[in-house]
Amino acid sequence: MSDLIIWTYGWVPKGPRGFVRDLRLRWACEEAGLAYSVRTVAFDGRETNHLAQQPFGQVPFLSDGRLEMFESGAGLLHLARKSEALMPRDAAGEAATVQWLFAALNSIEMVAVPWWFLTVTGKDDGGLAGWMGNRLAQLERVLGERQWLAADRFTVADLLMADVLRVARLRAFGDRPASEAYVARVTGRPAFRKAHADQLAHFAAADASRPG
Amino acid sequence: MSDLIIWTYGWVPKGPRGFVRDLRLRWACEEAGLAYSVRTVAFDGRETNHLAQQPFGQVPFLSDGRLEMFESGAGLLHLARKSEALMPRDAAGEAATVQWLFAALNSIEMVAVPWWFLTVTGKDDGGLAGWMGNRLAQLERVLGERQWLAADRFTVADLLMADVLRVARLRAFGDRPASEAYVARVTGRPAFRKAHADQLAHFAAADASRPG
Repeated sequence: MSDLIIWTYGWVPKGPRGFVRDLRLRWACEEAGLAYSVRTVAFDGRETNHLAQQPFGQVPFLSDGRLEMFESGAGLLHLARKSEALMPRDAAGEAATVQWLFAALNSIEMVAVPWWFLTVTGKDDGGLAGWMGNRLAQLERVLGERQWLAADRFTVADLLMADVLRVARLRAFGDRPASEAYVARVTGRPAFRKAHADQLAHFAAADASRPG
Repeated sequence: MSDLIIWTYGWVPKGPRGFVRDLRLRWACEEAGLAYSVRTVAFDGRETNHLAQQPFGQVPFLSDGRLEMFESGAGLLHLARKSEALMPRDAAGEAATVQWLFAALNSIEMVAVPWWFLTVTGKDDGGLAGWMGNRLAQLERVLGERQWLAADRFTVADLLMADVLRVARLRAFGDRPASEAYVARVTGRPAFRKAHADQLAHFAAADASRPG
């Protein structure tokens, strides 16, 4: 019996399936061979029904015995400390991994998610596409020079960056061959494919029991 | 002689002074009593002149002996590991601190910075103000119940959240008394005031030698 519990919604509409961020934690556990179970909070009423665990009403959050934490970045860092499969143990390798973990969230996703939000709601992007294009060009330069972001090996930073880029629809910002090859390489890993399939199956199974 | 070096620009225009993110690292060092020095890269040509240290052409980055890292969040976490003044040493206190460190960046700043970007460029916010208002309301509820985000004490998570909120112009989103009192409390600390004054002095001193 594992102490690691990944919390997600019991059901979500079809659109976000395959993208709900419990995927990041599932994927990390699969990479590291860490046993885990998945539990749920209700999607309906999510704005208020689990604020004690996640004060913004979102998922995922992670339990590890008596420890609880929200924010997928915090959960990934916690898992990375448990397994060298996710982060090297030397100081330089750890520093490189951690900086790129933050960069995925704060230099790329911070632009990508608002751009996506404006785009899907049909709003003018207000210049966010230009900002996004610059960031992606800078990342393309990095990925043109190496296979992995940190320490010359796969780390949890690649897991997170590939997940962020997967949502960012790179093609909308021009030809980015190194970035596209990188996303294909990282999301081609068996651990991603299993985590992705497991999330899809989890939500599909809930369709049967959903009222209406 | 300290091994900690905070890297920032040699000069910036008046607008961003007091907000450049080297402030976060200065502030953390001041809280922890960690000796540090400040070095600079040129503001002109920043898009390409220090990509080896910061692949997005930004500041700050941090050196600690032979370790180098960019992303202010990564630098703050590195400093927090050096000093209990910034983060408790027990597992629960550390997990709480780390989750709120990520939340400041990825749940609040991820909305605040794009909103600010659209606002200062005079663009329609495309609904980001509503998203921001929701997040700030959720945070107001948290801060209405306690003085500090994590572990019933000041941590590096408060430092970062207060810095993010300071930029977010809370008043634009309605009356948020707990959040405003929180920002005043955290930025009222002597370490913030010293870091802030030092940054202003650093850029002011550069005015004299700037051509043109």
